Amino acid sequence: MDTSRRDFNLSSLAVLGAMAAPGALAAAPTTNRRWVLASRPKGKPGLDNFKFEETALPQAGDGEVLLQTLYLSLDPYMRGRMNAGDSYAERVELGDVMVGGTVARVVESRNPTFAKGDLVTAYSGWQEYSTSNGAGLTKLDPRIKPTSYALGVLGMPGLTAYTGLLDIGQPKAGETVVLAASTGAVGSVVGQIAKLKGCRVVGIAGAAEKCRYAVEELGYDACVSHYDDDMAQQLAAQCPDGIDVYFENVGGSSWEAVMPLLNNFARVPVCGLIAHYNQTELPPGPDRMSALQGLILTKSIKMQGFIVSNHTDRIPDFVRDMSGWLAEGKVKYREHMVSGLESAPEAFLGLFRGANFGKLVVKVSS
Amino acid sequence: MDTSRRDFNLSSLAVLGAMAAPGALAAAPTTNRRWVLASRPKGKPGLDNFKFEETALPQAGDGEVLLQTLYLSLDPYMRGRMNAGDSYAERVELGDVMVGGTVARVVESRNPTFAKGDLVTAYSGWQEYSTSNGAGLTKLDPRIKPTSYALGVLGMPGLTAYTGLLDIGQPKAGETVVLAASTGAVGSVVGQIAKLKGCRVVGIAGAAEKCRYAVEELGYDACVSHYDDDMAQQLAAQCPDGIDVYFENVGGSSWEAVMPLLNNFARVPVCGLIAHYNQTELPPGPDRMSALQGLILTKSIKMQGFIVSNHTDRIPDFVRDMSGWLAEGKVKYREHMVSGLESAPEAFLGLFRGANFGKLVVKVSS
Repeated sequence: MDTSRRDFNLSSLAVLGAMAAPGALAAAPTTNRRWVLASRPKGKPGLDNFKFEETALPQAGDGEVLLQTLYLSLDPYMRGRMNAGDSYAERVELGDVMVGGTVARVVESRNPTFAKGDLVTAYSGWQEYSTSNGAGLTKLDPRIKPTSYALGVLGMPGLTAYTGLLDIGQPKAGETVVLAASTGAVGSVVGQIAKLKGCRVVGIAGAAEKCRYAVEELGYDACVSHYDDDMAQQLAAQCPDGIDVYFENVGGSSWEAVMPLLNNFARVPVCGLIAHYNQTELPPGPDRMSALQGLILTKSIKMQGFIVSNHTDRIPDFVRDMSGWLAEGKVKYREHMVSGLESAPEAFLGLFRGANFGKLVVKVSS
Repeated sequence: MDTSRRDFNLSSLAVLGAMAAPGALAAAPTTNRRWVLASRPKGKPGLDNFKFEETALPQAGDGEVLLQTLYLSLDPYMRGRMNAGDSYAERVELGDVMVGGTVARVVESRNPTFAKGDLVTAYSGWQEYSTSNGAGLTKLDPRIKPTSYALGVLGMPGLTAYTGLLDIGQPKAGETVVLAASTGAVGSVVGQIAKLKGCRVVGIAGAAEKCRYAVEELGYDACVSHYDDDMAQQLAAQCPDGIDVYFENVGGSSWEAVMPLLNNFARVPVCGLIAHYNQTELPPGPDRMSALQGLILTKSIKMQGFIVSNHTDRIPDFVRDMSGWLAEGKVKYREHMVSGLESAPEAFLGLFRGANFGKLVVKVSS
């Protein structure tokens, strides 16, 4: 993990603050670099689905700001935006900049709400510079340090874990909570909150190193590896009282191992299905859809999909709780930082083979 | 519909009240007649899965009552109890009396809580007489008239509709609610409550007569027939704003027609899957389980199984509301009454081909 982001400091802002209009700056950038969607993947995406472009620096119009991207978040949901069909939200059109959450710095402001030097969270995508009329920008909460945490434990993935687990999963002390992708941006937070709520927590991860980290650092009661052929048996052994909450982030073999262990009244917040995203067609039969319906019926199971953008009413509770837990060392958090916008596609593709260890973030500028 | 149950009156109770010990009665019954589970069905059940028996009249021991069954409820869930595997609840063992809810009369009491002549709801099954220590017996609420309604609109099916729709489905005025088996014991109540809540209600039923009844008598906005090949297209045409709540009682082709129409944040209370109960193996592929998971995820859908016995805390609200609606004519209710315990298996088998029109009840004694 590259922790150089911590070197980011306010002195650079002071310099920027002294700048006048862009035209007055000898060193002012004149170009933007960005990744656009070149083609829609069939199944597994590849580097050829992305195209790197150099364009003219965008100009902030009246009421707009010019933003410089500092950090770009890379997340599994982006795979869905590359498809022509429905996903959680709008697809990316061919030739358009890939979407993504960012931490950015206001380098020019023609909007009275923002001042040069302000740090904001934005949804400005895979590029170095962008303009905004201010919609969707949020000034960075001063409690968020390091600032890249605004893209992770104190940002969208953290809020996803918090609302999905607490509001949909509703874990009670003594219950068993299982989660897959359990050292990832969302999973690691889910597991640690579940421990704080007094649950038995069993993770599913890939590499042995991740399983060790889940138990030794994150404090899970156990972690099994989906690399092992007998993962389902290992999971059953680690869940002697069955499973009360399964935080679904993966699907596939993790879900299949969980299904027979679900207790009556189990809750399954469905947050993501990364194991399915590169599916090009439905798998061969038999058709287990009715088996899933039957399981939901006979065990009074609640299965509920959600997307974090519909839970923003919980941000104040979340920031209060999570800032406190981080400050007290009750929640640990790990970032997988890669350097330079050029690296974005390769790093993104790694998400689908579990190459990242912690929240994947691209450091775009310093 | 045989409405002769309304002839039941209290004068017969007065006669019974005059009885002393059973031995003192010239006309006292000496035998019990009952249906036991003879064999477990593979797929569709048949008459040969049931055996009719005549046995000695059971004797009420100390602290017990002797019950005479007046009405027996026949419900789809009983199919699950005939299996060796898991269902909602305990299976029926081979040779045991088939389970079922009843309205019964106390004909002898050695339990201080119950007096001879009391009417109770019980779970005494497919037989004419039974004994009970009082556990699970409820004296009939005097607001319940006719008494057979205690097995339907004012009993378990009514409470199922009430809690499943209101507590899990949470319909809001202006939303579209769809339900299958929509003139049945549960469905007819779901649809009418949804109308009372200001929803657009679209039913799915079989026979044209049922569809007409759903619209003309129950007040649904539309009803489509699953006998029609283009049912899915008809349903889509009747749900121009999509579906917000689907009360799942059926599964199969009804569910398949509903799936593509579900809106973001749709709620699917899963109450029953009658179309699946006689399945002997999973259908051939492709495997649509991941498609269902994906739908739940991308549309933030809540799918939740439930069983009425876990919602008994709502009985007071339910009896108050439903008695009021019935009294005001805001909820209509139809029974399909068959006469004589001998008819039970044949009537039960009819449930799976939609032969009943309204709540199926067997009049066992008068």
